[in-house]
Amino acid sequence: MPLRDHMQLISTDDHLVEPPNLWVDRLPAKYAELGPHIVEKVLHEGNPPAQVWRYDGTEHPNIGLNAVAGKRPQEYGAEPIRFDDMLPGCYQAAPRIRDMDVDGVEAALCFPSFPRFAGTRFAGAKDKDLALLCVQAWNDFQTDEWAAAGPERIIPMNILPLWDTDACVAEIHRTAAKGARAISFPENPVPLGLPSFYTDHWDKVFSAAEETSMPLCMHFGSSGNPPFTSKEAPMAVMIALFGCNSMYATADLVFSPVFHRHPNLKIAMSEGGIGWIPYMLERLDETWERHRWYQNISHDARPSDLFRKHIYGCFISDHGGIKNRHEVGIDNITWECDYPHSDSNWPNSRKVVEEMMLEVPDEEVHKMVELNARKLFNFPRVQ
Amino acid sequence: MPLRDHMQLISTDDHLVEPPNLWVDRLPAKYAELGPHIVEKVLHEGNPPAQVWRYDGTEHPNIGLNAVAGKRPQEYGAEPIRFDDMLPGCYQAAPRIRDMDVDGVEAALCFPSFPRFAGTRFAGAKDKDLALLCVQAWNDFQTDEWAAAGPERIIPMNILPLWDTDACVAEIHRTAAKGARAISFPENPVPLGLPSFYTDHWDKVFSAAEETSMPLCMHFGSSGNPPFTSKEAPMAVMIALFGCNSMYATADLVFSPVFHRHPNLKIAMSEGGIGWIPYMLERLDETWERHRWYQNISHDARPSDLFRKHIYGCFISDHGGIKNRHEVGIDNITWECDYPHSDSNWPNSRKVVEEMMLEVPDEEVHKMVELNARKLFNFPRVQ
Repeated sequence: MPLRDHMQLISTDDHLVEPPNLWVDRLPAKYAELGPHIVEKVLHEGNPPAQVWRYDGTEHPNIGLNAVAGKRPQEYGAEPIRFDDMLPGCYQAAPRIRDMDVDGVEAALCFPSFPRFAGTRFAGAKDKDLALLCVQAWNDFQTDEWAAAGPERIIPMNILPLWDTDACVAEIHRTAAKGARAISFPENPVPLGLPSFYTDHWDKVFSAAEETSMPLCMHFGSSGNPPFTSKEAPMAVMIALFGCNSMYATADLVFSPVFHRHPNLKIAMSEGGIGWIPYMLERLDETWERHRWYQNISHDARPSDLFRKHIYGCFISDHGGIKNRHEVGIDNITWECDYPHSDSNWPNSRKVVEEMMLEVPDEEVHKMVELNARKLFNFPRVQ
Repeated sequence: MPLRDHMQLISTDDHLVEPPNLWVDRLPAKYAELGPHIVEKVLHEGNPPAQVWRYDGTEHPNIGLNAVAGKRPQEYGAEPIRFDDMLPGCYQAAPRIRDMDVDGVEAALCFPSFPRFAGTRFAGAKDKDLALLCVQAWNDFQTDEWAAAGPERIIPMNILPLWDTDACVAEIHRTAAKGARAISFPENPVPLGLPSFYTDHWDKVFSAAEETSMPLCMHFGSSGNPPFTSKEAPMAVMIALFGCNSMYATADLVFSPVFHRHPNLKIAMSEGGIGWIPYMLERLDETWERHRWYQNISHDARPSDLFRKHIYGCFISDHGGIKNRHEVGIDNITWECDYPHSDSNWPNSRKVVEEMMLEVPDEEVHKMVELNARKLFNFPRVQ
């Protein structure tokens, strides 16, 4: 019952590092110096220069942990790196597809790096005309270059101009017409200074997502509010706790009006893991049973029912989640590779999945590693 | 296989509401007006007056949800209430023990209400001489009045003068000599303006806890930093997410120096639930496997091993946690009643436990509902 050869791995959470010319090639010439571009800069005296992004008056290094594919954990680190230090598959489409071949991965959804997971870098920029062009350039890169290199290998995703809901709607329809199949959206807009899921602010955006059958992919950390315990805590604490952000988003959504107003909206809790879902559904239902009477929440819709209808988890290596898959919901589980980040098992993804699935019936394995993702993202697109 | 009649329920997390005269009876006369005392106050025009605590220049209502025992969920609410609206067992020892009899609960550990779970109300007060006397008065009430009413029924716990580690050490030894068996301590001191678990600030306090064999009970929410998503979120979101605070504390502690410096320290994650523990241990170990090389964390101590040696969870109703009890650690699970709070199943605790345990071997049930707690709290005390 392990992973069968005919089952294709579809990764619902991978990452790309933007190539240096992504914006330079696509922005009007007047923005050559203002749009994101790579400059050489000595960050620590005595060290060779790093390659950093310059945009909106500030400089932003690539973070080493964003591109550790091919390295042993002993070589991991958070130091900025150069493009030459990364596997070309981090930032070039054809090598990426070869790296997916090596790993036995058939198709992948790729989140941005410099724009941040949900493109929120641009929502914080001063020049919003330029920011909109930057969002559109990233989306054009996804469909025209990244996904075009393998139309059955890359699930094209887009980011949104989050500061303007009309522009979001226009961008959703523009990118859907070009083949986009997913929207990266913040797990919580509030820490970004944007209205919460409890307001009607996002209704037209969520309706556009429903109309184009594109799920909102909420990557953990996309709120810009990582788990924090103390300034002395090692980064391991934050890494271990990131799934709590997906728990927060799940609780927020099931107790908000979002799913009542948008009965066809789908949410992917990207990189969130699945092992916590049975616990959280039990806790959400228990809270609802006891506390709905005096609060402004639905008296009819059980949180676990809303979850099963609307929310999808994903796993990399998650033995507890696989053991308890029926309490998660066998139709709500997808797989992810996380290439080229530090949680990925590349180039051993199939081996790791196979070992996790030894006790799982074929039909359930197939749903979790491939079929649920194909259905959720309508990929390849079925009219 | 269900709960057997000879197995005694030991609750590791109950709550008491302080009686109106707790401090008035114990503080020097000069503090009669300054120490915590009850005053009548109209909070909403047209409503009858509420009974509120006055202390340190401000007034603090009792919160209705802190004393819902005996009410149906349809009657729950966060409105302030009067002592006459509560069951006397909320604030009087003899009726409390009768309510435990009704529920089939043999012994209980009771957290404070007005002082907050870890007594942090006093750490925030201006007059620290008075605050220390208030801490000592609460602790004297626990041993001399509350626990004295049933020495085999109440596990006496204390709170600490958190602003002064020498005073903490003195209070630990003073209360231990009077029979205290547990210390209520914040799940994270940082949001309270106190040093983190990564500093050596708490070493003498933790050593005193080891010397007196008293576990630190970290009630979720005791950091004063409840889970927050947005100001519009209904309270159900916070209630459902409170277990994340215990996850934060667990990650903090296993990646901190605390257990390396204090090999005999025990921690109870009070009210934290247990269903999340298998997920979190898997995630902590995975993080440690991949990220310990370049971080200031132990290269030798696996987080799940530290957890099993030092940390105890507790459950009220937690089917997922019971199903996965071996991944939690059968010796690391205790039961709690949560009387008189809204998560409690009083007066049906034994019925609910019995239904949860139908498939569990007797020996494991006995450990989880009684024996682990007796051992952790050394209760009744074995020299």
